[in-house]
Amino acid sequence: MRVVVPYAAGAPKTRLTDILSATERSDFAAVMRDDVLTALQAVGWEPELLSTEPVDVDVPVIVDSRSLTTAVNAVLAESVPTAVVMADLALATPAALERFFAPAGDVVLVPGRGGGTNAIIVRDPDFRVDYHGASYLDHLDRAEELGASVSVVDSHRLATDIDERTDLVELLLHGEGDAPEWLRSAGFQLAISEGRVGLRREAPD
Amino acid sequence: MRVVVPYAAGAPKTRLTDILSATERSDFAAVMRDDVLTALQAVGWEPELLSTEPVDVDVPVIVDSRSLTTAVNAVLAESVPTAVVMADLALATPAALERFFAPAGDVVLVPGRGGGTNAIIVRDPDFRVDYHGASYLDHLDRAEELGASVSVVDSHRLATDIDERTDLVELLLHGEGDAPEWLRSAGFQLAISEGRVGLRREAPD
Repeated sequence: MRVVVPYAAGAPKTRLTDILSATERSDFAAVMRDDVLTALQAVGWEPELLSTEPVDVDVPVIVDSRSLTTAVNAVLAESVPTAVVMADLALATPAALERFFAPAGDVVLVPGRGGGTNAIIVRDPDFRVDYHGASYLDHLDRAEELGASVSVVDSHRLATDIDERTDLVELLLHGEGDAPEWLRSAGFQLAISEGRVGLRREAPD
Repeated sequence: MRVVVPYAAGAPKTRLTDILSATERSDFAAVMRDDVLTALQAVGWEPELLSTEPVDVDVPVIVDSRSLTTAVNAVLAESVPTAVVMADLALATPAALERFFAPAGDVVLVPGRGGGTNAIIVRDPDFRVDYHGASYLDHLDRAEELGASVSVVDSHRLATDIDERTDLVELLLHGEGDAPEWLRSAGFQLAISEGRVGLRREAPD
């Protein structure tokens, strides 16, 4: 099975603009991407990066500047089965990924928080993705139209794509790769007050 | 094993104050609680409700008006093993609960989004809970101090306690019990716009 990790190299993680500079967001996205690639390698896969621009990583890179949906569908048109795993799943561990790769469905879906599709395995050659809007629901519908069997993987680690401030809390709580260390080096830490866990940033030493 | 579902009967779900009236919040909390009890029964458990006030439900009720932590620890002092499952885990399905009950650890933890402890199994008679703050981290520490083995269950369904507006989106996306129907009857629906999934409320018919 091909394992593809889409990566938007330019101006990533715009929903973190209020707490990270453009350079920081770019660095942080690259560290998360490398965590995802490393976790995939740890369970025996040879991931390819599907990047909007050439980038310097230690895995094969497919450069495709088109939209995420178009670029992924070009890969699916070439070869199934293919797994597509988002580059910002910084909570992904080998154990969580093994659960993702275990089911036998024609389509295996991991819903992201908010209705996205954080990871998908496509074994049906006629299935195509559409990442716009509530893609999880759209992918369920599409599989049903094709008569394709669907497995859904229930994982907090894989449901949590790192987009927003509250996602950084999850990364500090549960992250096991380099991304939580990057955050801590940048001065972020958990801020625990009355019954709530938030995020605090202090100037790094 | 005892299975206990804590339930705060008075003024629940205060973080939904901006979109639900006090009566609605109370009704909604009760529907979620009943979904959790039903899902537990579906996998063969006989849950008890640990309620701050007497309530009319179809399971045994222990009334304890003290704090959540104190009330749960009183149960743990009486009997282990005990499982404690929060009453607002409205995405809990029998399959997700079976994964929770599967591991053999002295302490089995399900982290909630934001660092809480959404479900726990305690087999070590010396273990006590503390639900204040980042209880997930505190419970990990406490288990380590006791030399108790720990299993952590990675589940989006069980990590998603229904506290905030964005959690209602998850409930509409994935809920299988009566709670998502309650929400729809109250006029809530997914609002899908450019790339994002939100929540909309319209006057019920």
